[in-house]
Amino acid sequence: MPYRSPTAEIRFVLKHVAGFDAVAGTGRFAEATPETVEAILSEAARLADEVIAPLQRVGDTDPARLEDGIVRTPKGFGDASAAIGAGGWLGVAAPGEFGGMALPQTIATAVNDMFSGACLSLALNPLMTQGQIEALEAHASDEIKATYLPKLIAGEWSGTMNLTEPQAGSDVGALKTKAEPKGDGTYAITGQKIYITWGDNDFSGNICHLVLARLPDGPEGTKGISLFMVPKFLPDADGNPGERNALRVVSLEHKLGLHGSPTAVMAYEGATGWLVGEAHAGMAAMFTMMNNARVGVGVQGIGVAEAATQAALAYAQERRQGRAGGTGTIIEHADVRRMLAEMRADTFAARSIGYMNSVAIDMATATGEAKWKARAAFLTPITKAFGTETGIAVAGLGVQVHGGMGFIEETGAAQFLRDVRVTAIYEGTNGIQAMDLVGRKLMDGGEAAFRLLDEIEAGAEAAKAAGLADLAAPVWNAAESLREATEALVEMEPQARMAGAVAYLTAFARVLGGHAHLAAARSGDEGRARLAAFYIARLLPQHAALLAQVAAGGETVMALRAEDFAA
Amino acid sequence: MPYRSPTAEIRFVLKHVAGFDAVAGTGRFAEATPETVEAILSEAARLADEVIAPLQRVGDTDPARLEDGIVRTPKGFGDASAAIGAGGWLGVAAPGEFGGMALPQTIATAVNDMFSGACLSLALNPLMTQGQIEALEAHASDEIKATYLPKLIAGEWSGTMNLTEPQAGSDVGALKTKAEPKGDGTYAITGQKIYITWGDNDFSGNICHLVLARLPDGPEGTKGISLFMVPKFLPDADGNPGERNALRVVSLEHKLGLHGSPTAVMAYEGATGWLVGEAHAGMAAMFTMMNNARVGVGVQGIGVAEAATQAALAYAQERRQGRAGGTGTIIEHADVRRMLAEMRADTFAARSIGYMNSVAIDMATATGEAKWKARAAFLTPITKAFGTETGIAVAGLGVQVHGGMGFIEETGAAQFLRDVRVTAIYEGTNGIQAMDLVGRKLMDGGEAAFRLLDEIEAGAEAAKAAGLADLAAPVWNAAESLREATEALVEMEPQARMAGAVAYLTAFARVLGGHAHLAAARSGDEGRARLAAFYIARLLPQHAALLAQVAAGGETVMALRAEDFAA
Repeated sequence: MPYRSPTAEIRFVLKHVAGFDAVAGTGRFAEATPETVEAILSEAARLADEVIAPLQRVGDTDPARLEDGIVRTPKGFGDASAAIGAGGWLGVAAPGEFGGMALPQTIATAVNDMFSGACLSLALNPLMTQGQIEALEAHASDEIKATYLPKLIAGEWSGTMNLTEPQAGSDVGALKTKAEPKGDGTYAITGQKIYITWGDNDFSGNICHLVLARLPDGPEGTKGISLFMVPKFLPDADGNPGERNALRVVSLEHKLGLHGSPTAVMAYEGATGWLVGEAHAGMAAMFTMMNNARVGVGVQGIGVAEAATQAALAYAQERRQGRAGGTGTIIEHADVRRMLAEMRADTFAARSIGYMNSVAIDMATATGEAKWKARAAFLTPITKAFGTETGIAVAGLGVQVHGGMGFIEETGAAQFLRDVRVTAIYEGTNGIQAMDLVGRKLMDGGEAAFRLLDEIEAGAEAAKAAGLADLAAPVWNAAESLREATEALVEMEPQARMAGAVAYLTAFARVLGGHAHLAAARSGDEGRARLAAFYIARLLPQHAALLAQVAAGGETVMALRAEDFAA
Repeated sequence: MPYRSPTAEIRFVLKHVAGFDAVAGTGRFAEATPETVEAILSEAARLADEVIAPLQRVGDTDPARLEDGIVRTPKGFGDASAAIGAGGWLGVAAPGEFGGMALPQTIATAVNDMFSGACLSLALNPLMTQGQIEALEAHASDEIKATYLPKLIAGEWSGTMNLTEPQAGSDVGALKTKAEPKGDGTYAITGQKIYITWGDNDFSGNICHLVLARLPDGPEGTKGISLFMVPKFLPDADGNPGERNALRVVSLEHKLGLHGSPTAVMAYEGATGWLVGEAHAGMAAMFTMMNNARVGVGVQGIGVAEAATQAALAYAQERRQGRAGGTGTIIEHADVRRMLAEMRADTFAARSIGYMNSVAIDMATATGEAKWKARAAFLTPITKAFGTETGIAVAGLGVQVHGGMGFIEETGAAQFLRDVRVTAIYEGTNGIQAMDLVGRKLMDGGEAAFRLLDEIEAGAEAAKAAGLADLAAPVWNAAESLREATEALVEMEPQARMAGAVAYLTAFARVLGGHAHLAAARSGDEGRARLAAFYIARLLPQHAALLAQVAAGGETVMALRAEDFAA
């Protein structure tokens, strides 16, 4: 069965779980009327289903490759990318003055959800470009904005992010790439960057690299890093691609998945670059952008989870095997149903969190209120880590539902697993997300967390009042356990916190998932109430085992000596 | 770092956890003296480390392929396979009269553990052959035994199992392959079989296919299935490979992993076969063999978990990143330690279960006692499912420890994940294992389970008496919860049982893991006590969330309608 964008599910989450109406009610996003949103969703779905999804297998079997210094992309990727640009899909949340639609981030999230589910290796290119658009909008000079933003938003040029170097991964501050002033306002950029997603292609008019580098007077560590725009072709006086810049693709990585997406090692050999933002303030610029990018990566996981669920469901409804009752297909088997229910219930939970997060971002933009900023900041690592872990777990279940066919590549089930695996690693590993959550995001003493828990408990009270006491009680209790764990966590030593960080993040996501399912049950939709009952009875209880890990602190982890890990 | 067979760990598990001394103390296995076992372990380790392990990446990058009807195997696989045969490694547990060593199954398990960790795609070939040796030993006529067993045990010929057909996967009874008597005591076999592991190769003197097929008078379903030996070359009067049989490899599958292992679609076109065992009794013959094969597959998962753990540990001890303390390598980070500790602790838990299971098989063989047979039968689905789930989870953590490098194929971390994924599917999916556990294996009213729980509680009492009360109490309590869950489970309706089957199996494994870690702590080894403390504080609590799923029964799973799974 081909992928179908889950527009009904997205509409439901927007309305009943994420509270998108509040965003549309702000003056800032007054143009996000129901009619506009509906038109956007259906148009994006059409493109995703008809143009992008058919390229999912192509990207795997006809991978991107480097030929004589030129990156060749899979057949059809160029045309589909052009269609994405022509449709205005790069500019959903971009400012109107440069050709964007200036719609809420939440709508961009919905489009990302659908495109990622259709073909993640292809969708990564516009996603990288969107990240660059945000960075330039927030930090670039008017001149750079005027030159680059219209072309990027129109999808004529594409953008990349260059952070990582061989010795500088999670520790960006260790980077060695140099930027030397050339005296004419430009800089000569020299160094090697790795893991550059869509580092080059054979269809964009220009490839615009945002590169982190150190100025001669930049101190060591993250405080001495600046951000530069280093385009493949130097724009001429009219802003059109001119002279070739001194940069090249050294090689492409041979990866577990996302074969359609070229991941490049890039060499900058005195390439001309322009400073973006203030000198030595590159990390701040990256962080602005990275927060939204992290939400975006979480949504990639959700999109792949959706696609894997659809594929497994279709298979289970067709495949006849054994003495199952009813239709005789494997969906009648209790354990196959259990797997499909976990896939659907967790995809819904993760999606709900991602959209709640996006709504918080939009509310922060529209109102400027600190509580929305804190909410968005708190949810971001959860969206990223839980969205991607859900993508991986759901794709794994999808393989299992397919049985022996799941191990055969032609089925496509294994490709989801291979493709989505990196989302738990890039844009900050999920371990880093969890450390961000229990470190930076709890520096308010837990205020943002408690505010969220208050809402979850209020939701449970409302559900109880609506006659859903059996579903509401476990959610309320889980929120209360999480509140106690949060109180304990903020008092812990850093190492103890860090040792329980991933467990805490996952427990929070589990409880947020319960909140989302409860909201769905409250909508009156009986099918959603059945799925909520499944989630609350079977998946929500995991929070207790996770909180046991949090409570265990760092002692048993840090007590281990190097030799204890060896056999 | 290259793979090193975990001989010290295996020796420890044999002595302190699995109780191997009891096996060596039986008359049946009197030859399994400490000296013999030691010699076997170190010789097998040498072969695994020096000859087999270097082929792990080769098997992936130089996959098996079909060229003009001939299966070409990766460079070096033929020589290594010859070395395995020459070393007598196919006959560790095989009868002495045909050239085997007649040693306990537990020793064969140790060899399988090491070979699987070294290179699973290569190790699968002797493993399939060993399964065939067992089947022939138990069911074949003396003539067939005399012709085939010496060659198979010497590794000159190799063996395959042909069960699955396109419409008959988990439901073997749906098979259509026909066997028609030719009037000379042989049969003409006609049909197509899929997923035939090592269905052909370019180095064995003969390929001996055990094929399930239906005789003309065979009733429908599993009761009408017979087992046949269908060799690639018909043995001549001297028992040497003679005339080519009417069978061929149609194609090889393009798989997620195990690229070095050819997985064939086989066509039998009136091929000559000999009946093995009684007519219509093929399923019984397959089941005898399958039980041990299931233990073998669980051990494959354990072997890969070991290899993935070693690789991740080596990486974490070398890779410098961020402001970690001590050595400055990433193992100093709390979350990286947490991942490595989970990898090592769960590999130990799964390995302990696999070896306990093997000891039970040997004790059943040596004593014939029903309690050992029941113990072996009960542990088999747990070894298979938990061993393989551990392989997958540990390989996944291994990718994560490697960060961005984990997604790059050259690192090898992703290959472990790809290779091991199918072990949760073949030889009966893990869902089928769990159904076997809560169905057939609890048909004794839970007797085998309770006996095991008694031992676990006795172990906890002993640990308490030895001054390990803090570690012992959670294990004792977990065993008690599991006892209650077992009591409840045996009273449930079939669908309710099945809906909680995987959770019950995993909970049982978690508690057995606690038992094993407690035994390790009791040995007096301080490092093992530290790892036990980690497992008991952080992983054992998962049993409660799993038992909540068991207690939830089938209601929330079976209430879901087809449309509830769709977005």
